[in-house]
Amino acid sequence: MSRAALLAATIIAGSLPQAALAVASQDNTSLDATEPASSHSPLFAAELERAREFVDGMITEGVVVPVPKDPGGGYTHEQHKRNFRAIYQGGQLYRITGEERYRDYVRNMLLEYAELYPTLDDHPAQANQNVGRLFWQVLNDAMWLVHAVQGYGDIRDTLNAEDRQRIDDNVFRPAVHFLSVESERTFNRIHNHATWATAGVGMTGYLLGDQDMVDRALLGSDKSGETGFIRQTELLFSPDGYYTEGPYYQRFALLPFLVFADAIERNEPERRIFEHRDGILLKALRTTVQLSYRGYFFPFNDAIRDKSLRTAELYEGVAIAYGQTRDPALLSVADFQGRTVLRPNGALVSRDLAAGMAEPFPFRTLLLSDGPDGDEGAVAILRQGPTNAEGEPATALIAKNSSQGMGHGHFDKLAWQLYDNGNEIVRDYGAARFLNIEAKRGGRYLPENTTWAKSSVAHNTLVVDQTSHFGGDAKLADTLWPTQLYFSDAPGLQVTSSVMDSAYPGVTMRRTWLMPTIAGLEAPLVIDLVHAQSDEPHQYDLPLHYSGHIMEFDFEPISNTAERPVLGSDNGYQHIWVDAEAGLQDGRGALTWILDGRFYTYRFAGNGPLTAILGESGANDPEFNLRREPLIMLRAQREGEASFASLLEAHGSYDGAAEQTLDSRSLVSDLNHQRIDGMDLVRLTLKSGQRFAIAVSHNPDPATAHSVTLDGESLEWDGFAAVIALPGEDN
Amino acid sequence: MSRAALLAATIIAGSLPQAALAVASQDNTSLDATEPASSHSPLFAAELERAREFVDGMITEGVVVPVPKDPGGGYTHEQHKRNFRAIYQGGQLYRITGEERYRDYVRNMLLEYAELYPTLDDHPAQANQNVGRLFWQVLNDAMWLVHAVQGYGDIRDTLNAEDRQRIDDNVFRPAVHFLSVESERTFNRIHNHATWATAGVGMTGYLLGDQDMVDRALLGSDKSGETGFIRQTELLFSPDGYYTEGPYYQRFALLPFLVFADAIERNEPERRIFEHRDGILLKALRTTVQLSYRGYFFPFNDAIRDKSLRTAELYEGVAIAYGQTRDPALLSVADFQGRTVLRPNGALVSRDLAAGMAEPFPFRTLLLSDGPDGDEGAVAILRQGPTNAEGEPATALIAKNSSQGMGHGHFDKLAWQLYDNGNEIVRDYGAARFLNIEAKRGGRYLPENTTWAKSSVAHNTLVVDQTSHFGGDAKLADTLWPTQLYFSDAPGLQVTSSVMDSAYPGVTMRRTWLMPTIAGLEAPLVIDLVHAQSDEPHQYDLPLHYSGHIMEFDFEPISNTAERPVLGSDNGYQHIWVDAEAGLQDGRGALTWILDGRFYTYRFAGNGPLTAILGESGANDPEFNLRREPLIMLRAQREGEASFASLLEAHGSYDGAAEQTLDSRSLVSDLNHQRIDGMDLVRLTLKSGQRFAIAVSHNPDPATAHSVTLDGESLEWDGFAAVIALPGEDN
Repeated sequence: MSRAALLAATIIAGSLPQAALAVASQDNTSLDATEPASSHSPLFAAELERAREFVDGMITEGVVVPVPKDPGGGYTHEQHKRNFRAIYQGGQLYRITGEERYRDYVRNMLLEYAELYPTLDDHPAQANQNVGRLFWQVLNDAMWLVHAVQGYGDIRDTLNAEDRQRIDDNVFRPAVHFLSVESERTFNRIHNHATWATAGVGMTGYLLGDQDMVDRALLGSDKSGETGFIRQTELLFSPDGYYTEGPYYQRFALLPFLVFADAIERNEPERRIFEHRDGILLKALRTTVQLSYRGYFFPFNDAIRDKSLRTAELYEGVAIAYGQTRDPALLSVADFQGRTVLRPNGALVSRDLAAGMAEPFPFRTLLLSDGPDGDEGAVAILRQGPTNAEGEPATALIAKNSSQGMGHGHFDKLAWQLYDNGNEIVRDYGAARFLNIEAKRGGRYLPENTTWAKSSVAHNTLVVDQTSHFGGDAKLADTLWPTQLYFSDAPGLQVTSSVMDSAYPGVTMRRTWLMPTIAGLEAPLVIDLVHAQSDEPHQYDLPLHYSGHIMEFDFEPISNTAERPVLGSDNGYQHIWVDAEAGLQDGRGALTWILDGRFYTYRFAGNGPLTAILGESGANDPEFNLRREPLIMLRAQREGEASFASLLEAHGSYDGAAEQTLDSRSLVSDLNHQRIDGMDLVRLTLKSGQRFAIAVSHNPDPATAHSVTLDGESLEWDGFAAVIALPGEDN
Repeated sequence: MSRAALLAATIIAGSLPQAALAVASQDNTSLDATEPASSHSPLFAAELERAREFVDGMITEGVVVPVPKDPGGGYTHEQHKRNFRAIYQGGQLYRITGEERYRDYVRNMLLEYAELYPTLDDHPAQANQNVGRLFWQVLNDAMWLVHAVQGYGDIRDTLNAEDRQRIDDNVFRPAVHFLSVESERTFNRIHNHATWATAGVGMTGYLLGDQDMVDRALLGSDKSGETGFIRQTELLFSPDGYYTEGPYYQRFALLPFLVFADAIERNEPERRIFEHRDGILLKALRTTVQLSYRGYFFPFNDAIRDKSLRTAELYEGVAIAYGQTRDPALLSVADFQGRTVLRPNGALVSRDLAAGMAEPFPFRTLLLSDGPDGDEGAVAILRQGPTNAEGEPATALIAKNSSQGMGHGHFDKLAWQLYDNGNEIVRDYGAARFLNIEAKRGGRYLPENTTWAKSSVAHNTLVVDQTSHFGGDAKLADTLWPTQLYFSDAPGLQVTSSVMDSAYPGVTMRRTWLMPTIAGLEAPLVIDLVHAQSDEPHQYDLPLHYSGHIMEFDFEPISNTAERPVLGSDNGYQHIWVDAEAGLQDGRGALTWILDGRFYTYRFAGNGPLTAILGESGANDPEFNLRREPLIMLRAQREGEASFASLLEAHGSYDGAAEQTLDSRSLVSDLNHQRIDGMDLVRLTLKSGQRFAIAVSHNPDPATAHSVTLDGESLEWDGFAAVIALPGEDN
């Protein structure tokens, strides 16, 4: 097909953008979205009812298009948000049901906007240079356009020429002009705000048959391809589909990527957008799902912890990806979501799900590189254990060896989280924010987001001299990242290892997590090796933010039972209450807690004396903005090198209903750590008398043989690391 | 039938006690428990598999009958417990499957006991005068007998005469002698320990055809009926089927009551045991279910909070009660439990459940009198709101106006709890105990059970002069209880009101809870009126132990942000951290928190200045034995009368997935409380401008008219209480 012919086809297709064309071009299955609701499969039918309820309510209220005035959360802001949802869903309802009242409502709404839009200038609640028209920031104007243009597309071909002209010329063309010309700076960024803007502009281009709009959206204002949507797909995701700000923002960014890509695919299939960069967009969707546990996103960086796969952005994303791939694993995600979209892709998801075609999503151990070229650190996910009904393993360890992730990043290089038995055992605080709750500073990020949530000490990472990584300087942090040294998904001994030499000047931090299987011990077991090296003397603090109720500890602390002090005065330390403090001359100890019927013991050894601090978050918080959560901190004063070796051991069970308790105490009696010639040797003695060594050479070559003699015992192994059975003790 | 003929019939029946006879005597439905497992309905089939797994494992281990040595939790203790479960389930498996290996295993086990039992004297781990033979306390010996005699009954008729004689004479007759003669003091108590003993002895009597045993079990050692099982059914439950120790122990006591009653019914149906005292045993079973929320028992008094309807005692109880009543509501309890028993009653439950015959259990508002004559206070349960899939209303308020409940009682007269939206909003701590967790003082009650969990300040009750009710004297407490003054389950205005004049010398405490429906406000709303009267000046503390995260408060406290003191030195006050403290000259304030996506505002007014204290449990707890939970305490120094009026208002919602928040702030702008001529008048002003009065005359006569003029407004109503709409304010 010639370019001209294609363009002509595009224009015609553009007038029927989302609904009628899409699926028919993908397969021959009849999925006529105009059949009556009663014949739809359950998921789609429920979605239809939900949309009817919302839009019917809006119709009852009548068309309300207020003059923009309020900032986020205010009346005009919320009304324009409701309006774009109503345009979007109203169009879908008209397309599916054929009921003219939906068409008329969307038309009347857009005619009101045609009155309003030409009168607008910068929004009066402007907060910075990224000012919008309908909203206080341009991002919201882009979101409005992405949704409204889809609803308009569903009715445009049914309008008389006059109405169509008015809406084209007085709403959509000026909105595109505003986003792509007047706000050119935002439009040409490599940033998710620009993704929204290019998606809105490009989709409008397809609808109006305006290839200039489309080209600017795809290739940037100058059509050079240096910016624009295509370039964004190349620079905003790592080669593994990881978005640098983290899972919470990855979810948000996905919507315009996939919705616009879907429009490109339908209008310009020869672009093969879903194959671009080795299928990066579909990869990003799957990676987003991988970044979750029991449906909830790993909450690292600024993240609202109750954000899960059940979110509007991913209903669209999963349906579009399923339309492209027919991957049955995506159906099980849709099943978990219990939602889909009122598009042919959604009908397809709903039908195939009802037909029992879903398969478990393949949650697995994987390494997600960060940065456009995959060389700016990585997020490592180790998974293990029996799978639940959704096919998800019981245990997940996340090692955050990634880059800072821009303004929403936290100062937590080489931090980690552990999930087990359905719960977050080693925690990440997420953001200090109560989204949309007015009493909490209008729902915005709280002051404690900076003073606590972003600080290094609020994370499971190494803190030097009671300061945050990079001195808490976000701009500096964005230029520096860890190096991922080694990764192995070998089932009996999963490993991830990284080094960070620039979080603190002159201090090199190396951290290795191993998840071994050891006969006689339950799963999961996590060996955590932290090694810091510096020419200067420092204080090293290693906090572990755990979830659970303390059962016992094997040291004798001084307890602050009747007056509770705080740990420090700044960098997050001011928010930590100190419950108890123990000096450990031999640098060894163990703490056991219970969570949800399972016991966990954290057993540790330092290369010299340690202080163990039992504490809780929530000090210096007169507004009760923080959650109160326990932590143990290991503190070492060291010159030269500091090392911390620990074992996190899950064991036993407590069943209150059956009044049955098993193995409430650790099955390990001793942990010994030695560092010899840069190799780590952890020896475990079990209460059964069995003994094991976890030997780590730190040499990634699998063929290299290593040998160490320790207390008369010879340890031999090949490669990076190994579990070695040792002669047992008599018991 | 003559007595002699009946006795003969009983003897024959006695050799086939639980299985073959039971259901056939109740209806003509074929429920042959010997049919192959594959034909059983799912619940029963699953139970069969579970029993096979356990007993097959025991058979593999071989018969192990150790000489008694260890106390509770120790090896010989646990082994004898496993043995009685194996005898019990082994017999059932033989009866159902006909597989001789089960019969042989039970026989061989009992023959081993026939060797051991005659050699036994008092258990070496004797702790007090209630010493057992197989176990350290006689209660466990009784539990052994109750289970073992049932298993023996399933195989006895298949044994040769010699084996039967040896087991009869060397195990069961001496066990009966031990429990009913040598331990006569326990046997003749009116106490749940005696229920276990009489049940074991009586069931053995039926099996061996020994009417003397049966009569002693039913009527006490002297057969006078002053003690024994029948008398226990008359004295241990109130007329409403409430067991004075509370739900946690009610559950435990139910098993021997229902299992023995079932045996009586099958062997001596003319006793009509299930009709005795107006059907008290079946009533007690239903009351036990009423004392739960989402399946979990109200945790007041010493109670392990994770105890739910999913407990062995109630699998038996529900099956037996269903066999008696065919009440389809009991099927939904069994469905929730997901368990049943390997008896014909269990097969019946399983079959009818599979046939879809279950109906929701009728959870409802009800008053449960306490004491054998129903005149020792009461537990009031107010329920309201939309019901869940199990037919349970969203909201339940529990007013604990009952008696002390013996040694496991807490000092919490007129305390309350509130459940809503699936959660416990106003909390009862339950017991300070980690059952069976060795690290926590061997799993026994912790010291903090006395110093915190039992203390008045740990409850939602009025505390005078920082001391517990009755000075913390349990013996005194057992002789005194509140008087229930009024109760109404009227849907628009549920009410419960009580008075207690002996918790503190010279102080009369009156407390009334109302659950009104008010147009413009959401549900639930709870009005709580506390009134204390004394001739002496006192300090009155009213704690509210709530669940949730603070959103805001309308007072300006002094915050202990960097050093946190404790509230007092004893009577539980030593366990309270003080976060903040506010002096309220006008005695008014409000606190809002969030729990699980719903907001709650506690708005209060005192009859004079108040101090509001925001605190948390967990001080003076070096072993971390306590949970850390928030509280607000209202403190008043008063001469004469002290009153506290409050409104607990649920409002709005937070949906993190949809990023939608509704009504996060209270819908009420003002609460005004006046007490005039002994009547309480609470006036609410809503932010909408609407105004309402809740008027309480405290006169139970529904026909009496009341009239009060307040600030020029005339309030008129009839009866105990009313909600009155007042002229609104302009808004």
